[in-house]
Amino acid sequence: MHIAALDIGGTKMAACIADASGPLLRVTQATERSGAPDTIARQGLRMIDACCDKLGIDAPSISSIGVSSCGPFALRDGQLGFMPPNICGGLPNGDDLPNDWTFLPLESVLRERFSTVNIVNDCVAGLHGERAFGNAPANSMYVTWSTGIGFGLCVDGHILNGKANNAGHGSHMLLTDTEAGVCGCGNQGDLEGLLGGRNLEKRVGKPLAEVFSAARNGDVDALSTVAYAAHWFGRALYNLVTILDTEAILVGGSVWRHNEDLLKPLVQEEISRRFEALTSGVKVESAALGELVTDLGALALVMPPQWIEDWRTHTPWKHLQSIPLPAR
Amino acid sequence: MHIAALDIGGTKMAACIADASGPLLRVTQATERSGAPDTIARQGLRMIDACCDKLGIDAPSISSIGVSSCGPFALRDGQLGFMPPNICGGLPNGDDLPNDWTFLPLESVLRERFSTVNIVNDCVAGLHGERAFGNAPANSMYVTWSTGIGFGLCVDGHILNGKANNAGHGSHMLLTDTEAGVCGCGNQGDLEGLLGGRNLEKRVGKPLAEVFSAARNGDVDALSTVAYAAHWFGRALYNLVTILDTEAILVGGSVWRHNEDLLKPLVQEEISRRFEALTSGVKVESAALGELVTDLGALALVMPPQWIEDWRTHTPWKHLQSIPLPAR
Repeated sequence: MHIAALDIGGTKMAACIADASGPLLRVTQATERSGAPDTIARQGLRMIDACCDKLGIDAPSISSIGVSSCGPFALRDGQLGFMPPNICGGLPNGDDLPNDWTFLPLESVLRERFSTVNIVNDCVAGLHGERAFGNAPANSMYVTWSTGIGFGLCVDGHILNGKANNAGHGSHMLLTDTEAGVCGCGNQGDLEGLLGGRNLEKRVGKPLAEVFSAARNGDVDALSTVAYAAHWFGRALYNLVTILDTEAILVGGSVWRHNEDLLKPLVQEEISRRFEALTSGVKVESAALGELVTDLGALALVMPPQWIEDWRTHTPWKHLQSIPLPAR
Repeated sequence: MHIAALDIGGTKMAACIADASGPLLRVTQATERSGAPDTIARQGLRMIDACCDKLGIDAPSISSIGVSSCGPFALRDGQLGFMPPNICGGLPNGDDLPNDWTFLPLESVLRERFSTVNIVNDCVAGLHGERAFGNAPANSMYVTWSTGIGFGLCVDGHILNGKANNAGHGSHMLLTDTEAGVCGCGNQGDLEGLLGGRNLEKRVGKPLAEVFSAARNGDVDALSTVAYAAHWFGRALYNLVTILDTEAILVGGSVWRHNEDLLKPLVQEEISRRFEALTSGVKVESAALGELVTDLGALALVMPPQWIEDWRTHTPWKHLQSIPLPAR
């Protein structure tokens, strides 16, 4: 038996096929941004076909797919679709995007091919990955800090979904009434507006990689940007700890992964210095699974429990080959 | 069979005895604030004895107790106790309290008498009450807005507990970096610091009842205080909706109950005007069970499921007699 996984991001997509022994192959491609609203879902199907082709597997024989996708989600006619502000040109602030999309069907397209379809947002998928194959305890969260920011939340061993699978959109939490960051959702002063990679780069006027590199060389302005980022990121995490009584915070995403050395101690301090009864023992750590965390989480969604046990022992994802497909 | 419930607040306690037919009697008493750290737990036991006495019930025959208590909680030797900043004089900002308490044992004292002890914070108890006997759907929260502010959170039908039963302390979420409200926990600019009844009264310099009454008479300053309160309360609720993908928000507590007419439309607007994908359809309502919501929630914690069904049909709590006990 084979299973499929799809990871839909604002700039890149990945498709992956696995069997009981582990994930077999992963293909990636730039996310298409023009055409009909079902373009992205159909691109996903073609990527799975390409992956199967390369493996010599009969694609129609696969009946289960786990999907990790950017959100937010909405239901149309009882089927889940998504409406991400960074992709949909028809939403407010989408003027620079080459489409007039407002809602992208997903579940309805995938159900044409698969009998089992399980769709969660990318950070929830990350948390499923960390719960299955990493070190996320029963009260934990997974945070991605890259172009955007998102959360997967686990309380009492239960990964939160919410009324339309949108739990974890906490990056649209308002943190400040003075700072200037404007978010794609229209908010002023929410976490993603302040610190989402795209928004922060726009405000500091240079690539974040340059800023962090300058900070490592002792540049005072750059150090102050790093302190600013850690301050607001830490405040947001502190807020979530008070709300959910979390034990472990696992962070991933490009902004964090490349700059953990600078950010981690500052962010930890921002949490630990407040309300000891709630923050005592709360640890900020880097996610264990790195770049594959959402792919593995999407696979875990539709995997027999026995596979999870076996994969934990053998860590077969460590040998996974990833092939970029040319853009159409 | 009889069951007991205890509701421990910063200023008042209530004890209640119930059988299959409904709650039989409730006694209330001012919360004691001096003596040994187990004073409050032992006061609770005496109140249950007093309740049983009045009912002619043999107190030692009761083996189950549900407890609704102010938090935060902490574990000592594996047993739950609590350390509320408004009661414990030994904590930071507790100088005006007549004790040097830092931790109040609860579970260990109650287990001397009861074999089943289930302790949750007062807002989580309120949510259990609304889930059992009110109208709280699977994705909902219960909020108390009185002296302090607290939350009970339900996601996907699961009421959140967290690593030390402290989920729902979201009133210690930081909302602003400019406003002056200081909280008992030491935070500046968290929800309870801004809007907890005690803190808000201190800042406006008069009882809130006067402020809301003046606002109803068109007083401009009072109206601006009401708008301020609704603004920050609504922002906090919006934050929780983005994090948890909540459908219904049920509000109780004295500040809300007496001023719902003024607050509700403003708070609803503060939520609905943001991020439609997350807030569309989210309704702010008053909790259905009024003052008894936490007592009923505490009872629901240790009640056979069949009682819940029966009580929903017969609403026996509507006839419940409540007797104040003299302070010792």
